[in-house]
Amino acid sequence: MRISVFRRAHFNAAHRLHNPNWSEEKNREVFGLCNNPSFHGHNYELEVKLTGEVDPETGYLIDLKILKDIIYEHIEQRFDHKNLNLDVPEFAHLNPTAENICFVIWNILRQQLPEKFELKVRLYETPRNYVEYPA
Amino acid sequence: MRISVFRRAHFNAAHRLHNPNWSEEKNREVFGLCNNPSFHGHNYELEVKLTGEVDPETGYLIDLKILKDIIYEHIEQRFDHKNLNLDVPEFAHLNPTAENICFVIWNILRQQLPEKFELKVRLYETPRNYVEYPA
Amino acid sequence: MRISVFRRAHFNAAHRLHNPNWSEEKNREVFGLCNNPSFHGHNYELEVKLTGEVDPETGYLIDLKILKDIIYEHIEQRFDHKNLNLDVPEFAHLNPTAENICFVIWNILRQQLPEKFELKVRLYETPRNYVEYPA
Amino acid sequence: MRISVFRRAHFNAAHRLHNPNWSEEKNREVFGLCNNPSFHGHNYELEVKLTGEVDPETGYLIDLKILKDIIYEHIEQRFDHKNLNLDVPEFAHLNPTAENICFVIWNILRQQLPEKFELKVRLYETPRNYVEYPA
Amino acid sequence: MRISVFRRAHFNAAHRLHNPNWSEEKNREVFGLCNNPSFHGHNYELEVKLTGEVDPETGYLIDLKILKDIIYEHIEQRFDHKNLNLDVPEFAHLNPTAENICFVIWNILRQQLPEKFELKVRLYETPRNYVEYPA
Amino acid sequence: MRISVFRRAHFNAAHRLHNPNWSEEKNREVFGLCNNPSFHGHNYELEVKLTGEVDPETGYLIDLKILKDIIYEHIEQRFDHKNLNLDVPEFAHLNPTAENICFVIWNILRQQLPEKFELKVRLYETPRNYVEYPA
Repeated sequence: MRISVFRRAHFNAAHRLHNPNWSEEKNREVFGLCNNPSFHGHNYELEVKLTGEVDPETGYLIDLKILKDIIYEHIEQRFDHKNLNLDVPEFAHLNPTAENICFVIWNILRQQLPEKFELKVRLYETPRNYVEYPA
Repeated sequence: MRISVFRRAHFNAAHRLHNPNWSEEKNREVFGLCNNPSFHGHNYELEVKLTGEVDPETGYLIDLKILKDIIYEHIEQRFDHKNLNLDVPEFAHLNPTAENICFVIWNILRQQLPEKFELKVRLYETPRNYVEYPA
Repeated sequence: MRISVFRRAHFNAAHRLHNPNWSEEKNREVFGLCNNPSFHGHNYELEVKLTGEVDPETGYLIDLKILKDIIYEHIEQRFDHKNLNLDVPEFAHLNPTAENICFVIWNILRQQLPEKFELKVRLYETPRNYVEYPA
Repeated sequence: MRISVFRRAHFNAAHRLHNPNWSEEKNREVFGLCNNPSFHGHNYELEVKLTGEVDPETGYLIDLKILKDIIYEHIEQRFDHKNLNLDVPEFAHLNPTAENICFVIWNILRQQLPEKFELKVRLYETPRNYVEYPA
Repeated sequence: MRISVFRRAHFNAAHRLHNPNWSEEKNREVFGLCNNPSFHGHNYELEVKLTGEVDPETGYLIDLKILKDIIYEHIEQRFDHKNLNLDVPEFAHLNPTAENICFVIWNILRQQLPEKFELKVRLYETPRNYVEYPA
Repeated sequence: MRISVFRRAHFNAAHRLHNPNWSEEKNREVFGLCNNPSFHGHNYELEVKLTGEVDPETGYLIDLKILKDIIYEHIEQRFDHKNLNLDVPEFAHLNPTAENICFVIWNILRQQLPEKFELKVRLYETPRNYVEYPA
């Protein structure tokens, strides 16, 4: 009995899109308002999806309380009320687009979760713009 | 022209998580508040997804009115305003976790729907916790 | 500068509507499915509204972290994953309709919050049925 | 790094379900209220999903501003505040069911978007009824 | 114990904004896309609010099942899957703006509900545009 | 016929809560994570409510297209993708709490809207925390 479970979480963060190899002009042209040097921000909404076999003893794929705590400790504690560019080491040299944030979160959670679970991460930057990794 | 259609429904039910093969202590340890012997409850939100070929005469995969009525008769009538542990025979010996409820609903609907449609069921226990079968 | 602030919280509970002064028959007639003796349940969504003067030092009406903690300690801890009829003393002799639950929550919070704030409570039993006290 | 990005948009339109090869009677029987000759309408909500490789220079799969503009020019401008049966040529001889509208939108967008992106379209006719193409 | 209860419902309808005392030109100028002579449509979402005294016998302001049935019979049956301009007599000579639809619904429900209840109606034309009567 | 109309809009911004008259220590104590010197951010959701008399010629309180454009020009253009503390002059010496942002928006819109309309502004900082001015 192979099933998927989902858990949602959220964090509020500031960021700025910028490629240091480009001129200021090209950055403004490509990233527009998102390039604002004094930053802007979002309420990021996160959906973590795990797939695997249900444990017949518990009827759980995973205790969602455990998944919730892993997300809290490894994502919310590190990303919530932070400036992604300045406060989160993973983005010191990586542009914090929704695509890259989603990929970074996937990598962090992948290391915290048992290998037997397939992992997919969806990240909403706004209710109208969101990304999912892996495709 | 292979397409998927979705229909949402909901039911409100009480339940309790419990494994009769375990001690009271172990049940409390594993299931925590969800093990409360006097039950708690949820507004369950159900998403039924059917996949198949569109009928060129109607432009429908299936008349959603028919799907709505099947869900009403076989799921809502049996689960809504019920205690899943006490009132729904499928859970007499099966722990009503979201995973197991989703699996039971899939099995009930599978028997009511033409074989030509692939069936997937997503069940929201809360807006932040949900499951999907099959994976 | 008189303003209102709102904080949302939620709890999942079982309940049953019943008037012990009535016959079983009349209870079934008036409360229908909600009278199910083995209970059903809901994801209750709570909106707490406070009105008063903004503190010019902080720019806050109240630190929402404080309001969140009061709601957690006095409402969520006592109502979440509970059977309202059996586990919550306020409903030992009071029918746990949405109206009465809302009124009970208002009374509990009124005692925990400074008198200078006006208090209003909205309680969603489902996304389509909700109540507000005081009117 | 293969990823999916999603963009939501919406349009408000009137439509009527009808098969000109059938009698009025059969149309009423099959399409019920949706066959009303004076039309009814919906707030259609559209979700466009693109899948492909992230550009390492920008950290984007695609600039969502570009995707937003393509949806606006080719879908919203042509469908919003329109009668699908009377004002949109694609439905002159095609029944505007959610399935067919979704398929038409997919075809329009497919021609506007680079071939390197996989495209999937989800269309909500109401919050409870929606379709997705391809399956 | 004075309290408010709310019930939500919805209907899908076509409409067109038009003032027959004006020229076609002025109609297009004032109502823009909403003046489309072949109509457009919406998923209207309705919130009905009643205020009064809770009945101590039931713990209800009103049985929401009764309110739901009144809304169904007098609003949904008459407005759902209809063209407001052509199929609903109240709009034969009244422009079906959200303001006027809300006012018409209030008048219909006012006659169906006991005088002891205060009545307020909110009507969502889209999730971003809505009206409330009385103010 | 006195009625209220509502229009929603949104903007994404960075901010930091800080009182320059206090020590760094007291700022951290009072504002916690919101005091982060490198900022954090939100998707602010704005609800503008106008109350007045419906114009019998149009059936409108106000053309919502006009209200939308006023909000766009005077709020979104100035607040969206900005750092409230650094980029918006109104917060050069005013702490950008939700309460103060709401009050500033009310003042800006009050000057742009005809006096005959009563104005109320609700601002969602997150889906769980929001404020309304005037009370």
